[in-house]
Amino acid sequence: MGFKGGCVVNSIIYSIKNHRSIRNYLEKDIPEEVLQEILEAANAMPTSINGQQISIVVIKDKSKKEKIAEWTGGQPWISQAPVFLVFVADFYKAYIACEKNGSHQIIHESIEGSLVGAVDAGLAMGAAIISAESLGLGIVPIGAVRRNPQEMIDLLGLPQYTYPLVGLVIGYPADASAQKPRFPLETLVHVEEYQKDKIAPAIDEYDTIMSKYYSERGDKDTNWSKQVANAYKQVYFPDVYPTMKKQGFLNDK
Amino acid sequence: MGFKGGCVVNSIIYSIKNHRSIRNYLEKDIPEEVLQEILEAANAMPTSINGQQISIVVIKDKSKKEKIAEWTGGQPWISQAPVFLVFVADFYKAYIACEKNGSHQIIHESIEGSLVGAVDAGLAMGAAIISAESLGLGIVPIGAVRRNPQEMIDLLGLPQYTYPLVGLVIGYPADASAQKPRFPLETLVHVEEYQKDKIAPAIDEYDTIMSKYYSERGDKDTNWSKQVANAYKQVYFPDVYPTMKKQGFLNDK
Repeated sequence: MGFKGGCVVNSIIYSIKNHRSIRNYLEKDIPEEVLQEILEAANAMPTSINGQQISIVVIKDKSKKEKIAEWTGGQPWISQAPVFLVFVADFYKAYIACEKNGSHQIIHESIEGSLVGAVDAGLAMGAAIISAESLGLGIVPIGAVRRNPQEMIDLLGLPQYTYPLVGLVIGYPADASAQKPRFPLETLVHVEEYQKDKIAPAIDEYDTIMSKYYSERGDKDTNWSKQVANAYKQVYFPDVYPTMKKQGFLNDK
Repeated sequence: MGFKGGCVVNSIIYSIKNHRSIRNYLEKDIPEEVLQEILEAANAMPTSINGQQISIVVIKDKSKKEKIAEWTGGQPWISQAPVFLVFVADFYKAYIACEKNGSHQIIHESIEGSLVGAVDAGLAMGAAIISAESLGLGIVPIGAVRRNPQEMIDLLGLPQYTYPLVGLVIGYPADASAQKPRFPLETLVHVEEYQKDKIAPAIDEYDTIMSKYYSERGDKDTNWSKQVANAYKQVYFPDVYPTMKKQGFLNDK
């Protein structure tokens, strides 16, 4: 396959680059075979040491979605859309594997384990997002499943050594959303080594772009760095630390 | 776009499901505009609160790749392939955003912050993998950048509040690799709530499949659970914890 070649190549990259978050959905179910394709795509992604340290909980039950919409701080698109996926860091499977072989699992006590579960959840969610959007569906990721994590853990019946990391709304878009401007590519990408000096100017540039973006949407006094500074001057979801401990993720080695 | 419709839909999902790791590459450079497409796809993926808490370091320098091949435990495909990407959890940008607005950043001290950086790195890497494979390139993810993390941090000049999570080899495949059998889908996917009882039988099933897979490749005495039990009875990469602390990620709140 060539770079500027046929329909395949350009369509995949075009679809990925065209990503945007959708927060308004039609009341229309996703056919089971379509959802199956999305989940199989997620399952095809690599996991660290093939450790399979993730699970996906598929939620369609309306009353469950309504609870989650509330726990995440009032996000009605969660109950509106037909499907909500929860991506779970899952060392329960490896724990069973250890038990089966007479080993005592340690990895879930380490920060290394938590990082691996989270990266792998991102990989699987990436494939789910790209697949869903390629099928004409809309999505919005929901980090706020970590806002009331104990409620999520109880609702999903998550066993020890598992943790709900992030949610994904999937459904048919009710309207066309604008794409939020991305960070300048040169801020994401560094050549051969990290270029510290370019960060501050790139943030200034992105602040100008995002100030205009928010202003056009009626919010005249914000930009990227203001929002981030406001969010990250604290632990954004403070219940994550104690609930992770309770699930067995100690993160102390 | 319909489900069983035209070339677009099926090709994207087909390409994702066709993923396999490649560990043998041609000595052939990737054109700059092809790499650009892959990086732009990664940049199009969502990040939590649009916090942009990731960076990608692009390494083409042969001597750097040779060092990394050694530090990762002897992985010659890293120096053989033309491009090595390192996906970095990056709260240095948010730190600059906080400084710009007179805030004191706290998020990098929390486990919540580390999880967000890791999920977002997975999302970006997912898009890079899917894009690269759609362009006829091969890839293999390298978790072992965390095997000697301080060497990686020094080599890449990573500032405070950044951490190298995972690498990605990209190049033109020198041969066709077999696809490793995936975990049964019903072990990844849970309906409405986590189904604990299905895990042990699914592991038995996958052990049988993987035992055959390894046996055909000359390794007669292993399976999935044996490998995982052996890896996870310890902290797999023990230098992650101290080096994360040194980079400012305390993970203690």
